[in-house]
Amino acid sequence: MKLSKKNLEQRLDHVYDAIVVGGGAGGLSAGIYLQRYRLSSLVVEKGRGRSFWMQDLRNYLGLPPDTPGRTLLQQGQQHYLSLNGDYLMGFVEEVRDEGEIFAVKIKVGKQESIYPVFRARYLIAASGIIDYLPQLEDMQNVYDYAGYNLHVCLICDGYEMADKKCGLFVNSESAINTAFVLNWFTPYITVFTQGLCEVGAEMRQKLQDHGFPLVETPIQKFLGHDHEMTGVELTDGSTVELETGLVAMGSHYYNEYLKGLDLEWQGSNLVTDSMCRTSHPRVFAVGDLKVGINQVSVAVADGTLAATAIWREIRRAASPRRWEEHLANPKS
Amino acid sequence: MKLSKKNLEQRLDHVYDAIVVGGGAGGLSAGIYLQRYRLSSLVVEKGRGRSFWMQDLRNYLGLPPDTPGRTLLQQGQQHYLSLNGDYLMGFVEEVRDEGEIFAVKIKVGKQESIYPVFRARYLIAASGIIDYLPQLEDMQNVYDYAGYNLHVCLICDGYEMADKKCGLFVNSESAINTAFVLNWFTPYITVFTQGLCEVGAEMRQKLQDHGFPLVETPIQKFLGHDHEMTGVELTDGSTVELETGLVAMGSHYYNEYLKGLDLEWQGSNLVTDSMCRTSHPRVFAVGDLKVGINQVSVAVADGTLAATAIWREIRRAASPRRWEEHLANPKS
Repeated sequence: MKLSKKNLEQRLDHVYDAIVVGGGAGGLSAGIYLQRYRLSSLVVEKGRGRSFWMQDLRNYLGLPPDTPGRTLLQQGQQHYLSLNGDYLMGFVEEVRDEGEIFAVKIKVGKQESIYPVFRARYLIAASGIIDYLPQLEDMQNVYDYAGYNLHVCLICDGYEMADKKCGLFVNSESAINTAFVLNWFTPYITVFTQGLCEVGAEMRQKLQDHGFPLVETPIQKFLGHDHEMTGVELTDGSTVELETGLVAMGSHYYNEYLKGLDLEWQGSNLVTDSMCRTSHPRVFAVGDLKVGINQVSVAVADGTLAATAIWREIRRAASPRRWEEHLANPKS
Repeated sequence: MKLSKKNLEQRLDHVYDAIVVGGGAGGLSAGIYLQRYRLSSLVVEKGRGRSFWMQDLRNYLGLPPDTPGRTLLQQGQQHYLSLNGDYLMGFVEEVRDEGEIFAVKIKVGKQESIYPVFRARYLIAASGIIDYLPQLEDMQNVYDYAGYNLHVCLICDGYEMADKKCGLFVNSESAINTAFVLNWFTPYITVFTQGLCEVGAEMRQKLQDHGFPLVETPIQKFLGHDHEMTGVELTDGSTVELETGLVAMGSHYYNEYLKGLDLEWQGSNLVTDSMCRTSHPRVFAVGDLKVGINQVSVAVADGTLAATAIWREIRRAASPRRWEEHLANPKS
């Protein structure tokens, strides 16, 4: 059921089989599987994750390619609640490993916040990432286009950018290398650093060899209308015409609550085995937080795998259920 | 586009980037990704695979839990065709490795069959499995219930069988062990061997200890109405009342066409790496054919991974695309 400040009290004595941090594609899939394995679970969602911002989920089997990410999330949440899973809007602040149980402290409510502690045997980290966007004075101007034709994922949306005039927005020299993958889809690439990083001679030469202009002047604003970006205006008043854009400025990882646990990382990503188990035997990681490609389909499968591994372990440790009335000496 | 006897001629000179054998969940997902990576692909579907028989796809994020497998397949096929993928109804008879290229011989048409040979650089084996069902004189009687409340997948449908009187239909002694997993969901299990296998003293004792009756008399027919199975009638005229059933009689693997290639197997399943690549560098396996759990969500992610690995390899070997008009000395 949906938990809130009003009714969460009744779950504070309960030990869940698993708490799932994040109600995106990976977390909801995990929750659906956990409930179907007849385990008890709580999904904690802070809201407005990466899939929330997708305007079109163009590569997920079963949904028409113009399905917004929000529709997937709404359907998934409804599905999960129909299986009697617990769902709470909140932000996980801290996880303490008490040996057999995790104590999970959650901030609930943006105003007059409360900080209840829920308990579970297993933890599924499904809190994902969020892409950094160009920071302009008027951020609404960025949000008007981000997720529309100003993309953040090359694998998802390279196809949409095919043979179009594309701005590549970066904040580091290494991110400029994205241009040499993006050019599989389009050669009409202009790289914008906004002066946020130095660009060495070698990289300048490489860009020149490919015919990709480098613009280091900061951006004043994106131009366009009706969520269709048509170019940028620079702070020097000049403009660059574009038909699409790709932001490659890195991502924020929602992994702060995991920092107190002894986990193996690869950069900001968690290392997992083939069932999404981290180096901690009772912590699983699914979706963008773990090593691997950041795709909805992968996150959904990850949720399946993590829930299945948890179920197997709990099931194997449980007493066998017998058909009492057929036993010679029925046991209770 | 949809290929058929009438128009397939025009593709016989073409070398696809990949041929995908099987148009189920894994194959269609692979096809969608391949096309979005701007690669050329052909999906070959024989029809009536495992997902075609699913009456309710209850655990796939984004679709309401009463969605039939057929709806997923139809949506996926439409999605794939909208991306200009080639799709052919046919049965892959043979794959010959010609070094850099595979020659794939396909039987097209059940009557007046023709056997065209298509060519591709990569092969994605997505042809899956099909569950063996009890063989009764009147097979329509089996089809009336299979995929409804006579299930074939414990992970998918254990939840539907919870605390119900369940028949477990097996054809080998080892399959009887399924009872000791199924009892997580329900203890009211009757095991039916139909006399197809010997059952040793140890297994008989184990069943007795759990209170699970063992029925070795062959089944005459399933009882029920409107796709709801309510029991079985045995050949001796007696009946056993049931509320649901699970068939655990093994599966046929559609892998005959792969037998000429040098691949690593684990039983009937293909061994793959984390990107679904088999031991042959240009052969990938996705879904039920590979080692792992047989779930739609996993197959869909597998398709993503295999297509991505193929794209990376082809992209890295390709000449870089330059923005010619910005080059000092434009090259053609």
